[in-house]
Amino acid sequence: MSLHHSKSEPSGGPHSCRNMAPTKGILERLDAGEIVIGDGGFVFALEKRGYVKAGPWTPEAAAEHPEAVKQLHREFLRAGANVMQTFTFYASDDKLENRGNKLSFTGAQINEAACDLAREVANEGDALVAGGVCQTPSYLSCKSQSEVKAIFKKQLDVFIKKNVDFLIAEYFEHVEEAVWAVEVLKETGKPVAASLCIGPKGDMHGVSPGECAVRLVKAGAQIVGVNCHFDPLTCVEAVKMMKAAVEEAGLKAHYMVQPLAYHTPDCSCQGFIDLPEFPFGLEPRIMTRWDMHKYAREAYNAGIHFIGGCCGYEPYHIRAVAEELAPERGFLPTASEKHGNWGAGLEMHTKPWVRARARRDYWENLKPASGRPLCASMSTSDGWGVTKGDADLMQQTEATSQDQLKQLFDRSKC
Amino acid sequence: MSLHHSKSEPSGGPHSCRNMAPTKGILERLDAGEIVIGDGGFVFALEKRGYVKAGPWTPEAAAEHPEAVKQLHREFLRAGANVMQTFTFYASDDKLENRGNKLSFTGAQINEAACDLAREVANEGDALVAGGVCQTPSYLSCKSQSEVKAIFKKQLDVFIKKNVDFLIAEYFEHVEEAVWAVEVLKETGKPVAASLCIGPKGDMHGVSPGECAVRLVKAGAQIVGVNCHFDPLTCVEAVKMMKAAVEEAGLKAHYMVQPLAYHTPDCSCQGFIDLPEFPFGLEPRIMTRWDMHKYAREAYNAGIHFIGGCCGYEPYHIRAVAEELAPERGFLPTASEKHGNWGAGLEMHTKPWVRARARRDYWENLKPASGRPLCASMSTSDGWGVTKGDADLMQQTEATSQDQLKQLFDRSKC
Amino acid sequence: MSLHHSKSEPSGGPHSCRNMAPTKGILERLDAGEIVIGDGGFVFALEKRGYVKAGPWTPEAAAEHPEAVKQLHREFLRAGANVMQTFTFYASDDKLENRGNKLSFTGAQINEAACDLAREVANEGDALVAGGVCQTPSYLSCKSQSEVKAIFKKQLDVFIKKNVDFLIAEYFEHVEEAVWAVEVLKETGKPVAASLCIGPKGDMHGVSPGECAVRLVKAGAQIVGVNCHFDPLTCVEAVKMMKAAVEEAGLKAHYMVQPLAYHTPDCSCQGFIDLPEFPFGLEPRIMTRWDMHKYAREAYNAGIHFIGGCCGYEPYHIRAVAEELAPERGFLPTASEKHGNWGAGLEMHTKPWVRARARRDYWENLKPASGRPLCASMSTSDGWGVTKGDADLMQQTEATSQDQLKQLFDRSKC
Amino acid sequence: MSLHHSKSEPSGGPHSCRNMAPTKGILERLDAGEIVIGDGGFVFALEKRGYVKAGPWTPEAAAEHPEAVKQLHREFLRAGANVMQTFTFYASDDKLENRGNKLSFTGAQINEAACDLAREVANEGDALVAGGVCQTPSYLSCKSQSEVKAIFKKQLDVFIKKNVDFLIAEYFEHVEEAVWAVEVLKETGKPVAASLCIGPKGDMHGVSPGECAVRLVKAGAQIVGVNCHFDPLTCVEAVKMMKAAVEEAGLKAHYMVQPLAYHTPDCSCQGFIDLPEFPFGLEPRIMTRWDMHKYAREAYNAGIHFIGGCCGYEPYHIRAVAEELAPERGFLPTASEKHGNWGAGLEMHTKPWVRARARRDYWENLKPASGRPLCASMSTSDGWGVTKGDADLMQQTEATSQDQLKQLFDRSKC
Repeated sequence: MSLHHSKSEPSGGPHSCRNMAPTKGILERLDAGEIVIGDGGFVFALEKRGYVKAGPWTPEAAAEHPEAVKQLHREFLRAGANVMQTFTFYASDDKLENRGNKLSFTGAQINEAACDLAREVANEGDALVAGGVCQTPSYLSCKSQSEVKAIFKKQLDVFIKKNVDFLIAEYFEHVEEAVWAVEVLKETGKPVAASLCIGPKGDMHGVSPGECAVRLVKAGAQIVGVNCHFDPLTCVEAVKMMKAAVEEAGLKAHYMVQPLAYHTPDCSCQGFIDLPEFPFGLEPRIMTRWDMHKYAREAYNAGIHFIGGCCGYEPYHIRAVAEELAPERGFLPTASEKHGNWGAGLEMHTKPWVRARARRDYWENLKPASGRPLCASMSTSDGWGVTKGDADLMQQTEATSQDQLKQLFDRSKC
Repeated sequence: MSLHHSKSEPSGGPHSCRNMAPTKGILERLDAGEIVIGDGGFVFALEKRGYVKAGPWTPEAAAEHPEAVKQLHREFLRAGANVMQTFTFYASDDKLENRGNKLSFTGAQINEAACDLAREVANEGDALVAGGVCQTPSYLSCKSQSEVKAIFKKQLDVFIKKNVDFLIAEYFEHVEEAVWAVEVLKETGKPVAASLCIGPKGDMHGVSPGECAVRLVKAGAQIVGVNCHFDPLTCVEAVKMMKAAVEEAGLKAHYMVQPLAYHTPDCSCQGFIDLPEFPFGLEPRIMTRWDMHKYAREAYNAGIHFIGGCCGYEPYHIRAVAEELAPERGFLPTASEKHGNWGAGLEMHTKPWVRARARRDYWENLKPASGRPLCASMSTSDGWGVTKGDADLMQQTEATSQDQLKQLFDRSKC
Repeated sequence: MSLHHSKSEPSGGPHSCRNMAPTKGILERLDAGEIVIGDGGFVFALEKRGYVKAGPWTPEAAAEHPEAVKQLHREFLRAGANVMQTFTFYASDDKLENRGNKLSFTGAQINEAACDLAREVANEGDALVAGGVCQTPSYLSCKSQSEVKAIFKKQLDVFIKKNVDFLIAEYFEHVEEAVWAVEVLKETGKPVAASLCIGPKGDMHGVSPGECAVRLVKAGAQIVGVNCHFDPLTCVEAVKMMKAAVEEAGLKAHYMVQPLAYHTPDCSCQGFIDLPEFPFGLEPRIMTRWDMHKYAREAYNAGIHFIGGCCGYEPYHIRAVAEELAPERGFLPTASEKHGNWGAGLEMHTKPWVRARARRDYWENLKPASGRPLCASMSTSDGWGVTKGDADLMQQTEATSQDQLKQLFDRSKC
Repeated sequence: MSLHHSKSEPSGGPHSCRNMAPTKGILERLDAGEIVIGDGGFVFALEKRGYVKAGPWTPEAAAEHPEAVKQLHREFLRAGANVMQTFTFYASDDKLENRGNKLSFTGAQINEAACDLAREVANEGDALVAGGVCQTPSYLSCKSQSEVKAIFKKQLDVFIKKNVDFLIAEYFEHVEEAVWAVEVLKETGKPVAASLCIGPKGDMHGVSPGECAVRLVKAGAQIVGVNCHFDPLTCVEAVKMMKAAVEEAGLKAHYMVQPLAYHTPDCSCQGFIDLPEFPFGLEPRIMTRWDMHKYAREAYNAGIHFIGGCCGYEPYHIRAVAEELAPERGFLPTASEKHGNWGAGLEMHTKPWVRARARRDYWENLKPASGRPLCASMSTSDGWGVTKGDADLMQQTEATSQDQLKQLFDRSKC
């Protein structure tokens, strides 16, 4: 395969963040049969880099440490991503104020900064800016439809002011809330994608992926799919169920998938949140670049054309997706300048036995060991089974008290 | 524990790279009993970010993509590192030209740019800049002592011009070459640290860690230790052997350790290079932050006061080292603003069963599963056993030929 | 729990093999709500003892080494078994002559000897003798219904002559053949049990467990269930599906389960035959006695009252079933004289830390390690997917030729 | 390989137990360079069959259930064993009365019955009868040398009366006690073998295997080695150390090894007793027959000619040893009539994909999965470190009290 690197190569230099409209919109690309590559998850990547706090998982870094967020955007762009999602995950006001999380920035400041950073880097490579909203504590606390919609509306006002290219409602566990989000986003006239964090077993109320997808398409989403919570092949499976049901219903949509970069064969319906390793012991589950090749191929073969990543993705994971699909796309991502196809760079390694690994069949067949003989290969998921409306899931502005913690500790030992 | 965050907090903003001398030198700090925290390995971290090519592993990114290198320096600084090592690994001219690696920058340009970046970020936090040299293809190709020393000298000239704070000769597999390096570095009058990439079984000629250390101290190294190739507890074990032998010989030194962030219980004497997972399938071996707490404590208890990381380390691993040793040091690193001690940030998590994990004993006792039921927990290392002087290890300017590759593939199947 | 040991204790001494009718028949026991405990699989146990050849798996030992077969019967009796199954597995004439298997005994001799041995030991403990038939090469070779039925008839003639207490048609992969067997057995007027070697996915023609059970009951089986091919909990799951379907159809039956003593979470529809470890590498999958406690409880809770074992069962596995159900049955098996409940015998161990293991919660929670760090926890099953009618499954009197073997070896490498 | 089966084939029929002297003694055989194959461990095998109680581990079954013990002897004989060890493990009077163990037979009765059974079966195949003594509670309780020796003498009197062919002092954790035993046994004039249950780290007082062996040879043992407590390759390693030291000391001896049939890579110095799986969760560690091939070859290559087994060995394990060494011995064991070499019997299997496994390279390279994804591959050993003289190790006639148990439970949770 002799492929040119992406022509619109990011320069890495400083750019203004004026809105240079990308050459083609998301729907034009998908309608034309193009593969659109998404970026990876920001909260996990920036947590490891020291800019996001695990627990609240809020994106104040967009305002607080813009250089770190911009650098991550740029790395995903170089890796082949066509979409820069604004780093606005959990940036709704009700979430920013949850359980004693103290921030120096308002929700509006964070959302605005995130839009500017995404646009600045998108301009370096003809990528699209997607404004994102996600599930809210208000919904879990049983607030009314109009209250929840007002939450989405607040973020949306910033996205419109900053003129993002399209909108994503993602990481919803309940299709009902996702439908509400889509209804709000649709009012803007921008293209709308909707992505649930569910697996083949469906949402937290037991609605199947197929039924979820049908509802979202009917609500106006042009792109539907799943993100987060499960590993790539599980997510692809869920999106296949969505596609089958949408087609069965005589509807039409594009499909997206942005899974975890973790192996999760042992998850129950709530995904990796239930695994005992979440979130600070997931390392042994991190997927290799070769796992990503397989994922990209499976997703593409399933008819999914918007293919990206979520928690656990590092830039090299997205690059592997772009490399696997380079024959279809006709070009390699910029960052492949620093990566030999299927390990070919090892031809330059000093040690001869490592040079002997410079071939596809070696890496494709490798079953990597964990180096952890005292650890099992699977875990038993927590199965608390609580969801919307449960007292323990309610929005709470003040910090979790010691009494509350003690009750949780005791309960978790049962 | 109620600890203030590091007072000399990096601002994250732009800084000039003029040489602001840090307040205390490396030997002053170690002599005073201070713990000095090192940074993590740059080649692996930047390979994942898309700026270093696995195979040649050369550091041209220092000149080519300075913003990416600077960002990584800054993340390690925020994580607690007191030392910014210049990103000059494998930046000797003989290595830069090896096996068809084509670069747009000269060795001098790369070394200079690396010094500037390290200094710029070091100034953000009163850290020290260490200029680093490492093993050379010339040595493996049986070049003479004077030829090999000339290679080191060329890099050293840049370090002196840029006035680094001290020097590290690291990643040597043969103590003989390391001694040569120390002899060259000593001529500058700067403090010299020497670190071998060996485990308890000693160097590639079978010289024990203890004997290696004695030779290095006699050659003039003030700090000795090991880096890379083995997991933290194995490296600590090797440095303990060094310390015992140095003391036994009536000599005096400080000790350093900068291990892998990978579990390697199944390594032979050449370390993780021999593992079938090297370098593209190591993910299941990545250590958790809690593994790092244990490592930091063990290293400190062994009398090692310069404690850092090498390949596989991400900023959060270094932060864990700094957090474990915060009681001794009296302060937390800057990036702990975004990290609750022993998982305390999870008190703010939405899901109650995740809040129940906000406690030390949960994470300290967790045996994380790999999610890979088709993979074993250990591997059988390659055992080619070739070293200095073997035809396959010779420096070669032209690219590895297809014939050469075929021979290697065949040999690896035996 | 203070329970008496089984009153009708086997003496271990010599007994005549005259037909001493047991006090109650199988249906009387089940109708009365009694738990009937089966024995374990003979071919695997006697293969390990040196009396059965893996490959043909034929039971000539009944005639050839009666003392060994009798001893195994006695061990299962002591362990609590209420049923002595005649060791007549694969004792149909078409199977005895398959693929070059050379035997010194006729089918009739083997079947007769097996009946005598079962009766002799049954008399030592008021157990029932069950005559067993199983799947035939004739069926796989697409012989007609009347030809296949004639095969069963030949074995049956011996069972009637020897006056066994009831009949079991077991280890059928195709419900069609099992129905034929039941139809033949029913003509004798003896109670008939029918057991398929299938899991929740159904038989080799894709007939669900529920539908299979309904057909078997309609054909006249009073007891239905599954045996072999899957681990205990999987088999219990399949029998639950049978029970639900039988009840749904307004029919009535008793239920039996005689699973493997191997963990098989990674099996495809054909069960452990497909696992790469079958039959000479299954050791790491062998279940502990504590796994058997869990199995017995699950089976009983599912309403299954005929609970035994198949391949992999050793006497101590059956004893564990009997010990778990001792509260319901009101007595312990004879062999519990040599076994403390839940490890209580360890109170007499010399080492104090082993005495500390003399408690239920220790063993109930133990996750036993394999001591095999180079092995995975799951396998990928072979998936040849061939079944009835495939050329490779045809009955063949002459030995497998070298050419035939070579073709198989090549095919297995694809 | 075309080998005849053992000429002196056991008939399986009844034999008188008069002392038919075998044609050649143990030393004649070893001196002539013959390979002598031992039997497997009786306590574990008979525990699974329901005749031995785990905890006391005493051999009353020799008197209580002679048919069961005889059958096991016969199975090992058929599998190729040349030595029938009397089932007199822990048959010293001080052990028989330990911690509330209630027996209906005297020590003398048990020892006599065991000799008769061993002889009866030995006569079926020209095998040797070895009378065995092992470690005593008296030694652990710090009784005097003369008291301990008197214990051995009592068993020995029976062995002499029954005219066993040679003597084995086995399963000693302290070389001091083993030397005492050898000194007693030597007085009989019979050949004496001495076998410690230690690994490469030496005995419980830290005496190295080499030093242990030298002491035993000097005390008069003609055969030295190790048995039990560790897996085969570990035991071979320890015996190699013994051989090197004996030769270094200018002494002369034969060597024996009778290891566990369990993988124990994670054992500390006290072997499998310390593993959390001991004794009721060892199943996943059971070795395959192919592991035994490797063991037999390694032992033979190390110059060990008395090669047998201990706990965990089933007859098929011994058969595998005999099959591996058939080329050297010139014949196959009787039980190989029921076993194809390296899986060749599978040529007769019904399923074609199983016939495809009828070849050496398949089984030699198989890495068998455990089917236990929730279990690790290694365990952390208990490390109580108590030995001779510790209060908890003292002989105690009365049963362990509830108070004593509670203290142990509490201690084990620390």
